[in-house]
Amino acid sequence: MDIREEVLQKAKAAKAASYRMAILPTGVKNAALFAMADALERRAELILEANAQDLEEARQKGLKRSYLDRLMLNEARISQMGEGLRQTAGLPDPVSQGDWSTVRPNGMEIRRIRVPLGVIGIIYEARPNVTADAAALCMKSGNAVILRGGSEALRSNTAISSILSKAAYKSGVPEGALQFVESTNREAVDVMAHLPEYIDVIIPRGGAGLIRRVVENSSVPVIQTGTGVCHTFVDETADFEMAVDIAINAKTSHPSVCNAMETLLVHRAIGEAFLPRLAEAMREKKVELRGCEAARAICPDMKEAVEEDWSTEYGDLILSVKLVENLDEAIEHINRYNTGHSDAIVTKDLGNAHRFQREVDAAAVYVNTSTRFTDGFEFGFGAEIGISTQKLHARGPMGLNELTSTKYLIYGEGLVRK
Amino acid sequence: MDIREEVLQKAKAAKAASYRMAILPTGVKNAALFAMADALERRAELILEANAQDLEEARQKGLKRSYLDRLMLNEARISQMGEGLRQTAGLPDPVSQGDWSTVRPNGMEIRRIRVPLGVIGIIYEARPNVTADAAALCMKSGNAVILRGGSEALRSNTAISSILSKAAYKSGVPEGALQFVESTNREAVDVMAHLPEYIDVIIPRGGAGLIRRVVENSSVPVIQTGTGVCHTFVDETADFEMAVDIAINAKTSHPSVCNAMETLLVHRAIGEAFLPRLAEAMREKKVELRGCEAARAICPDMKEAVEEDWSTEYGDLILSVKLVENLDEAIEHINRYNTGHSDAIVTKDLGNAHRFQREVDAAAVYVNTSTRFTDGFEFGFGAEIGISTQKLHARGPMGLNELTSTKYLIYGEGLVRK
Repeated sequence: MDIREEVLQKAKAAKAASYRMAILPTGVKNAALFAMADALERRAELILEANAQDLEEARQKGLKRSYLDRLMLNEARISQMGEGLRQTAGLPDPVSQGDWSTVRPNGMEIRRIRVPLGVIGIIYEARPNVTADAAALCMKSGNAVILRGGSEALRSNTAISSILSKAAYKSGVPEGALQFVESTNREAVDVMAHLPEYIDVIIPRGGAGLIRRVVENSSVPVIQTGTGVCHTFVDETADFEMAVDIAINAKTSHPSVCNAMETLLVHRAIGEAFLPRLAEAMREKKVELRGCEAARAICPDMKEAVEEDWSTEYGDLILSVKLVENLDEAIEHINRYNTGHSDAIVTKDLGNAHRFQREVDAAAVYVNTSTRFTDGFEFGFGAEIGISTQKLHARGPMGLNELTSTKYLIYGEGLVRK
Repeated sequence: MDIREEVLQKAKAAKAASYRMAILPTGVKNAALFAMADALERRAELILEANAQDLEEARQKGLKRSYLDRLMLNEARISQMGEGLRQTAGLPDPVSQGDWSTVRPNGMEIRRIRVPLGVIGIIYEARPNVTADAAALCMKSGNAVILRGGSEALRSNTAISSILSKAAYKSGVPEGALQFVESTNREAVDVMAHLPEYIDVIIPRGGAGLIRRVVENSSVPVIQTGTGVCHTFVDETADFEMAVDIAINAKTSHPSVCNAMETLLVHRAIGEAFLPRLAEAMREKKVELRGCEAARAICPDMKEAVEEDWSTEYGDLILSVKLVENLDEAIEHINRYNTGHSDAIVTKDLGNAHRFQREVDAAAVYVNTSTRFTDGFEFGFGAEIGISTQKLHARGPMGLNELTSTKYLIYGEGLVRK
């Protein structure tokens, strides 16, 4: 079967199933999630075999270690997938929840309820656990889902999705609601991106390149997630110890994730006193510093930051450092270079904290707190499908609510418009 | 100046202004809206002169009467624009309103507030009043706006937007927040659609052709509005008089608007009794009926409906009519052919009303009420920028809230992630 035909058939089947998914009782969805978790663990052997083949091929291709690590599954990681499915069963079902209602002067009753988006396309790269996580969240929120994983994880993903869909359908989930596209050619992504009649939204999960390709080339609405050039601004009145703790946490606790800090801005008035202390703490954690000219005048062993550094998501133990004149310059720099993800100020000044939160344009704006907290679990939403860095539809961590739309239900007794 | 350069400069200026717009006090915005209204009325003469030239040219081009009517301005219509601006000043300001907050177990305080989208691009066709209406709604919701109207209304739109922006800037609105693109070449739309760094969302207002062109060709997120293939299903238990009243209202009270009915579905069991009565009432209103075979067997003077009829937005006194076996077939037909706008059931059966509302996939699903009510004013939202027929971000009438996004503000006392 050719690529276009495969995607088209799966998209049509997903759309057809989506109408039944939308009215599936919560109990059936939860039972299916438990059955899916059990099936994954029961058939772990099969998944690990497929994964071993994927890993072997990836090694032969010479893919780097961090990539192999994302691809690799073991018993523990399969259990984590199962645990994720069970936790999703425990989250409240957003479907049909009312979020607004009114009665108009003519007696017309209007209520607005949450409804599923319909069919969600997820395009992702190396991590096979996304297959289970995304399926669980889409299913619990009443959506049909079309998964399209990266070529390197094809065997693993195929094994996982086949186990999941069998278990789901057996538990009463409508057939077709869980689709996995096996064509790993890029053309499959392009076909998905041009089926607005069957796919309601596409969420790309992966690197900036993948996301850009989907956004620039899609007639299906896209939610952009996960690129994070996050900043921390250390204000004149900051507590130095707190500022170092927050900076170290934001940079080093998990450098490869999107809520890690990439650029530190420091108020010029405290540069001489603060920067050496910061540099020493970063050196202990093996962080490479790249400074602006003024920062290097204070700490000459910093490398030189070039223009490109300010917009780079290192995802690594590298930090760019810039001295700024004042709060205005800090806000201006952030609004120019950030990706709308997470930015923080460390300060004791109430007015500056307030202005920073109002004026910085990002999904999450922190006061005296590490940017590392931007995450569905940390915000109390449970699992997340990603962190939206766009302003339309959803911003920040996207949980189950963000996988729904709304619908107005109107009741009258023979009302007509004058 | 070439087209690309014009649009790019205006988009950059709008983006720069958007940061100041986002924190503009409500009082300044309201004063500006009043000043804009006054200026429009004071300089009506200038607008009418420009409009007379547009009309003359349109007449020479042989554009049809309905088009000329949309283009035409007079004192009364200019007063209406002014009134719209003043009414928008009276609506509550959504910006900075909190809509959720929590304190996490570690003491982290999170609140979510509404923030403007940033820069909104509005692409529209003949009606010059959109220039004032859209500017008012975008401004009140704290957004910068780039307007791009149709070529036939260029002189009128240029006059209106120049009067509006002067009055706005004089009242403290940041310069650049209100942009009007004068290039009426299609290329201007394409350029706008490829500036995601400066434009946060594009809302096309106009015919299906315009909307499709923007959607299929945009790396800026788009909100689709305003195409409506709306249905009314007359169930077996319907009160005939109510059903006729609702159908007549939905079809004839304003046939050119998007919430007008295009297709009437009738339960087969009442076809013989109901259809002749309906047909007579429609004939009195000069509505052309196009029926399925079964409907024509009952009312032989109906024209024959062909496949294309079921997906056509006539925008005119034409109605397609189909007999269906039962509620299932009605829902299936609607979900296949509707545009996700508004659909209605006329019934006395509670179970059928409930199923219809749950299972029909549309922004507004009515029971015993005319679809004509889908409208910002009728829903109590005040003015609307359009009626979204997509599921992402906003669905149904879009008022001021729908022109905002959200932002998480987080406060901690030196919190770092474990």
